[in-house]
Amino acid sequence: MAGPPNTFEILVASLARLPGVGRRSAERMAVKLVEDKEGLLRDIGRSMQAAYRELMCCSVCGMITSVDRNPCRICSDPDRNTKILCVVENPGEIMLLESSGAYEGKYHALMGKISASRGAGPDDLRINELVERIKKEDIEEVLLALNTDVESDATASFLSETLAGRGVRVSRLASGLPVGSPVMYSDPVTLARAVKGRR
Amino acid sequence: MAGPPNTFEILVASLARLPGVGRRSAERMAVKLVEDKEGLLRDIGRSMQAAYRELMCCSVCGMITSVDRNPCRICSDPDRNTKILCVVENPGEIMLLESSGAYEGKYHALMGKISASRGAGPDDLRINELVERIKKEDIEEVLLALNTDVESDATASFLSETLAGRGVRVSRLASGLPVGSPVMYSDPVTLARAVKGRR
Repeated sequence: MAGPPNTFEILVASLARLPGVGRRSAERMAVKLVEDKEGLLRDIGRSMQAAYRELMCCSVCGMITSVDRNPCRICSDPDRNTKILCVVENPGEIMLLESSGAYEGKYHALMGKISASRGAGPDDLRINELVERIKKEDIEEVLLALNTDVESDATASFLSETLAGRGVRVSRLASGLPVGSPVMYSDPVTLARAVKGRR
Repeated sequence: MAGPPNTFEILVASLARLPGVGRRSAERMAVKLVEDKEGLLRDIGRSMQAAYRELMCCSVCGMITSVDRNPCRICSDPDRNTKILCVVENPGEIMLLESSGAYEGKYHALMGKISASRGAGPDDLRINELVERIKKEDIEEVLLALNTDVESDATASFLSETLAGRGVRVSRLASGLPVGSPVMYSDPVTLARAVKGRR
């Protein structure tokens, strides 16, 4: 009866669909937005409208790009190594890899990973597109830059099997100690991988 | 050069202004929004537009209300106890107190707390409005339902001093063990307050 109006509930429910946002944080965000209607709400509203008008995921690699630059800058860069394709789960990881400056090939974002708990199978990922690209673009090496949890490992295994016999080398990012992190703070699985991958 | 376009940066920066959202989470949210442009981005955009059109903070107590219901339902409810005013930091706490069903008076949200680190002083809070209401509405008791951190304690002290000699009783929420939480899991400060407030 004395609760907040329905519009507020809808706002909370939609904010709670953002990654990493639970019901409580969504409520806190919604309150803040209404409190600062002319400031924060307006600014976020505008930046979302601009994003809706101007941004998209590159139709080739999945990276965030402008609607008037599709394929994206990376996909259309002639100086890139066109023989190697780095497979990531999400476009955010492309940005991170770019900022490391260590990779000069092209990318392919799967837009997720295989996840039994969320009911996401191979068909929900951009795996067919990957197989197509490998054929069409004459790719020689696929570098899997996936995460290191169980679901990502399952995704990597699935990809390795799918790509076997297609004349493409499949590699994975090296596992090991984070730079600057002491051996003492590591965990046995990471240590085991670091030992196995020693050079 | 190969980074995401400026529109994306602006979106990330505005999302990072939401409470509890850091740069990394804002980036993850922004990527998700562009990925799911026709779903999530559209839905949140719409719910924000509706919030902008239809919601506001009640001009009396600060609670979230419809623009066509100001003062809010609680402020205009004739069955409420009009002699007691519960002071909270944010409108979200009014909702929580309402859901407890333990309080039947009216509310007053300060819209924050005194915070040296964020440079928020008494003038940034709705304290003058509180003093005005106490006089005008003939309030007999002010119940401070503030948080229990250092800044909230400072705010409570400031309010107690400000309201002293204005013919109003000032009380605070009882401190003690959360219901269902074992003594063993409590901390010394909470235990001390629970002992002091024993009944």
